[in-house]
Amino acid sequence: MAADGRSLAERLLAGDKRALARAITLVEDDRPEGWELVREIYPHTGRAAVVGFTGPPGVGKSTLLGALTRAERARDRTVGVLSIDPSSPFTRGALLGDRIRLTEHFLDPGVFIRSMANRGALGGLSEAALQGALLMDAAGRDVVFVETVGVGQAEVDVIDHADTVVLALMPGSGDSIQALKAGVMEIPDVIVVNKADHPLTDTMVREIRGVLSLAPARAGAWKVPIVKTQAAFGIGIDELAAALEAHRTYITAEGTLLERRRRNLMNEVVALATARMRRRLEASIAADPTVQDLLDEVVARRLDPASAATEILARNAARVSADSPEPAG
Amino acid sequence: MAADGRSLAERLLAGDKRALARAITLVEDDRPEGWELVREIYPHTGRAAVVGFTGPPGVGKSTLLGALTRAERARDRTVGVLSIDPSSPFTRGALLGDRIRLTEHFLDPGVFIRSMANRGALGGLSEAALQGALLMDAAGRDVVFVETVGVGQAEVDVIDHADTVVLALMPGSGDSIQALKAGVMEIPDVIVVNKADHPLTDTMVREIRGVLSLAPARAGAWKVPIVKTQAAFGIGIDELAAALEAHRTYITAEGTLLERRRRNLMNEVVALATARMRRRLEASIAADPTVQDLLDEVVARRLDPASAATEILARNAARVSADSPEPAG
Repeated sequence: MAADGRSLAERLLAGDKRALARAITLVEDDRPEGWELVREIYPHTGRAAVVGFTGPPGVGKSTLLGALTRAERARDRTVGVLSIDPSSPFTRGALLGDRIRLTEHFLDPGVFIRSMANRGALGGLSEAALQGALLMDAAGRDVVFVETVGVGQAEVDVIDHADTVVLALMPGSGDSIQALKAGVMEIPDVIVVNKADHPLTDTMVREIRGVLSLAPARAGAWKVPIVKTQAAFGIGIDELAAALEAHRTYITAEGTLLERRRRNLMNEVVALATARMRRRLEASIAADPTVQDLLDEVVARRLDPASAATEILARNAARVSADSPEPAG
Repeated sequence: MAADGRSLAERLLAGDKRALARAITLVEDDRPEGWELVREIYPHTGRAAVVGFTGPPGVGKSTLLGALTRAERARDRTVGVLSIDPSSPFTRGALLGDRIRLTEHFLDPGVFIRSMANRGALGGLSEAALQGALLMDAAGRDVVFVETVGVGQAEVDVIDHADTVVLALMPGSGDSIQALKAGVMEIPDVIVVNKADHPLTDTMVREIRGVLSLAPARAGAWKVPIVKTQAAFGIGIDELAAALEAHRTYITAEGTLLERRRRNLMNEVVALATARMRRRLEASIAADPTVQDLLDEVVARRLDPASAATEILARNAARVSADSPEPAG
């Protein structure tokens, strides 16, 4: 209970930014109270438009999000921004620089900005991010932007839980175009080409169109718009906001939104269960000296990895999938 | 038993290419005989130099591997190439084109080339790829190249199990450099800049050096070489082969190889156990109609995802971690 007698959940549902910040920290730290809170507020979620943003570092995603936030605020919508920071082995410079571009919104009560750091655990961050998005939704944010950096499967998995997925590129994002072309990356719902004052912008747009044209055409299917922006100057932002709105209207009208959310929630449940089993397994391994002996046998090539996995699973059967009072166990 | 009375394992250990091909198919199809076979041949592994290759599509990884294979063959070493194909939602064109560049080696008994397709299962492909590399090792390949496409965490995870990790780039790989810089991608052991006839090659090499210089310097630490190649013309390939050799000498002398393999094998055991638990969980879910009811509750926002995960884990406790005769179960 807080000083004013209201619970954290009550304050969060009333839109209190400090309660929201506290709630996300609880989830990020994997605290049982955090999961309990999500359980409590979950019936109040599902109202926000959740928009996932991905793309390689350096294309200006944070500047784009800053400009989009301004556009949403001008239409009197409240905004939540959740930035997923990658685990950085040696420097955070580029990303900290990005964060600064969002500072103009820090004092606006209608905007809530938060970054979460990757703790390297399997699925750990992505699960925490999804809970973070639910908390922002429950706190009454009309739009929740979830931002990830990177152009691989793991990065796309996180924002795949969004209602609308945006891929941000810039002229020179050759690797990403190739990844789209080769099918390494799924086709997003909206593509932005930022820094569109670059002379190679139109070449890039043509290349993207070429890649998109390879996808099998279905009647009535969503046609992925390519929006050119210069986020630093506010150019193209209204068009981008309109494209996001158009996608929302489309998925709502087609019933795709419900279908998509059902699929995403199912994946989320399985991912949460798997992450929990893995954590219990790792804890059991750390606590079990005979497991270290098993690993020594594997290193000595006397026992193969799959048989070692079978033995470890058998040894830890009870502990790993036992029901436990703390969901994050 | 084959017609000649020898078992598949015996033929594989004798270096029979058809036995190797059959063995990899068994593993790729997740057949119990495949895992049994790996168990049998595992004591004979650990001799091959396993080299992981990653980088964005289009940089010419397959051409590089073709040229490196030629160089290794000239030194009378046998080679295995394992290419991990990403799941492609709509086209495989670029990748099939790449495969063709390796055809000159198809008739050489000292070269074994195989690609494995991503079946989208969590960790499924990466586990299968690791078993595939073990099979090639047991079949007496002196060098095993494992190739992945992409520039994200999942892609790097696969080749992270290699003794030496090579990142292939080309002038214009701006996204990858940014990913390195931002710490999204781990620093590899060797960097190749292919298509080095491009006028921007030296600019790119300088950029990479700039990124590498940000890493904390440790006395006696491996200094990541940047090798410029034009693989299609065989230029720079000897230098690349020498860099790989130098890295191998370094990790062997420093004891890093053993340390690295121990860490990798431990991760592999945990990943195998987790993948198995996840598969059992998914199978249980599919077989359990009340789980579908739980998911309906989640979609209706009456039950939160984490609580649903707890209930599902509790319902399936026995099945999920039960010891089972088939390791792939």
